[in-house]
Amino acid sequence: MTHTGDRMLHEIEEQPDSLADVLARAAPEARRIGAAVRATPPRTVLFAARGTSDHACLYAKYLTEISLGLPAGMMSPSTLTAYAARPDLRDTLVVVVSQSGTSPDLVETAGVARECGAQVLAVTNSPGSPLAFAADHHVDVHAGEELAVAATKTYTAQLLALWLVVDAWRGGDGAAAAAVPSAARQVLSQGDAVRRAADRLRFAERLVVTGRGYAYPTAREAALKIMETSYLPAHAFSGADLLHGPVAMIDRSHPVVAVVPEGIGARAMAPVLERLSGLGADVTVVGGSTSAVGAHDVVLDHGLPEDLAPVVDVIALQQLAHTMAVARGLDPDAPRGLSKATATW
Amino acid sequence: MTHTGDRMLHEIEEQPDSLADVLARAAPEARRIGAAVRATPPRTVLFAARGTSDHACLYAKYLTEISLGLPAGMMSPSTLTAYAARPDLRDTLVVVVSQSGTSPDLVETAGVARECGAQVLAVTNSPGSPLAFAADHHVDVHAGEELAVAATKTYTAQLLALWLVVDAWRGGDGAAAAAVPSAARQVLSQGDAVRRAADRLRFAERLVVTGRGYAYPTAREAALKIMETSYLPAHAFSGADLLHGPVAMIDRSHPVVAVVPEGIGARAMAPVLERLSGLGADVTVVGGSTSAVGAHDVVLDHGLPEDLAPVVDVIALQQLAHTMAVARGLDPDAPRGLSKATATW
Repeated sequence: MTHTGDRMLHEIEEQPDSLADVLARAAPEARRIGAAVRATPPRTVLFAARGTSDHACLYAKYLTEISLGLPAGMMSPSTLTAYAARPDLRDTLVVVVSQSGTSPDLVETAGVARECGAQVLAVTNSPGSPLAFAADHHVDVHAGEELAVAATKTYTAQLLALWLVVDAWRGGDGAAAAAVPSAARQVLSQGDAVRRAADRLRFAERLVVTGRGYAYPTAREAALKIMETSYLPAHAFSGADLLHGPVAMIDRSHPVVAVVPEGIGARAMAPVLERLSGLGADVTVVGGSTSAVGAHDVVLDHGLPEDLAPVVDVIALQQLAHTMAVARGLDPDAPRGLSKATATW
Repeated sequence: MTHTGDRMLHEIEEQPDSLADVLARAAPEARRIGAAVRATPPRTVLFAARGTSDHACLYAKYLTEISLGLPAGMMSPSTLTAYAARPDLRDTLVVVVSQSGTSPDLVETAGVARECGAQVLAVTNSPGSPLAFAADHHVDVHAGEELAVAATKTYTAQLLALWLVVDAWRGGDGAAAAAVPSAARQVLSQGDAVRRAADRLRFAERLVVTGRGYAYPTAREAALKIMETSYLPAHAFSGADLLHGPVAMIDRSHPVVAVVPEGIGARAMAPVLERLSGLGADVTVVGGSTSAVGAHDVVLDHGLPEDLAPVVDVIALQQLAHTMAVARGLDPDAPRGLSKATATW
């Protein structure tokens, strides 16, 4: 007999294995494409996606800006589809990420981008999808079939596949990624701490998730998971943007989850955490031992470098979302009003 | 004697005049810079800002993609500041927008972008600010002093100034902008309808604001105004992104404000409105007469073309935020925890 949320839980816990599969099965193609792009390097990288995959793109945008030293941006697909813009995309790599590879607006974006002169890379979990065929290059992330509507293992597979492409592009040997599956296991080993944190948030009516730099996409994805499965208004802000306005919302009944793994992002978050503390905010830190000091914080001690940490840090937030939803009597496997592949135009 | 929220209200109502001032005083410089950029055109445009100014950048990003046909993106300032990335920004225009021109991360972003080869354009309301001095080009939006903490007239001045730059760049004559002050007056004339809509939302505990294309920045700015002044969790989503997950949150107690001015964005929003209607969602439309059909909708009938409409459409949403905050006994002139210029690093 299956219980509410079992599929999502299974897919969360499967991630050490699914990430090992990415390394075994997706890495060769990802690295071949990264090397090919290195041979004819674009000057700009644009990303297009929706929902969870959008956060994978945001992660890859940070990688591109920081480790490739290239200008990067998120495309608004509607400019090409609804507004029929035909920008000059020569010397541009357009990366389109989609689990299902079927949403018509993304397939059209890939096609139009090619017509406009871009190299197009599609990253999907569906090698036979229209998006895979519409692109110049395709990485199948090999996450295996995902049954829960809320994406988990396909997201971390996308992150790792994108890291592998970028690492090959910058001439790396990909070695650091070998530690990802065991790091995922370390994060899962903190499950009791995550459940305690989720229990404290059982009756929260709203939530803010914050992080900076590489941790910001994780904050965004955590907020989306909570919205999708607990139907709570969960806002994500970069630490800096939070202070430019939204912080006015924060009071003792508006809890904050701060994603603060060790690294440069954590140092940039220190003044934000200080400000939140000054406001008396209820903050749960999910992060490194430097920042996580409260009794209900979750310590992530997996030792991955900051640019790979998002691949596994998010697992703790997926667990948090799952636990909160089940405690509220909701079924995270089948959120109301959603289906596994969403079509938009 | 002044009342709670009087400053913000005054600044909202002043916008037909402040926008006329932009045309009289900021337009010559904005158009001179647009023409100069046209003479040595960049191949990519990146934007950097925080808070309200970030939404002005998002608007200009749509203008750049659609009417200039150039790839565009939003920078993550932390990549240059915290992570010390030094991307290759030759052939790139970096546009930094800030009301005060003082936030250290934006001043540093402008300086680093120049070192990395970019042309840098600053758009501020503070000609003597460090940001104005750090840039190659500076547009003073001439909005006049803004006393309320929640930005209103500086935002619409930024939008109009950015439109003037882009229009000169694309070789336009700027004539369409002459109608902006009277269009702002038309929007203000719908004040009673806005107050009725705000009254219905008096006891809402959370809110979603949605729009597509040119109307999406307006939705973002509306949500921020409501967060800042009513301390409500107000989420903004593009219509397409809303369907990719967050729609699960929507039920009869989670009202939606849809920003749907006439045009291509409105046609792209039709399936989203249909979906929301199917869910039994409580939707207030602020937009053109095609989409606004309910008794509590707000009809904007100013006749501006779609690419200029955001300059005045947002005024109705500013009024909505102001009315909601005052009804809740809050002071939108001085939201808790905020000051007029926010410094982040």
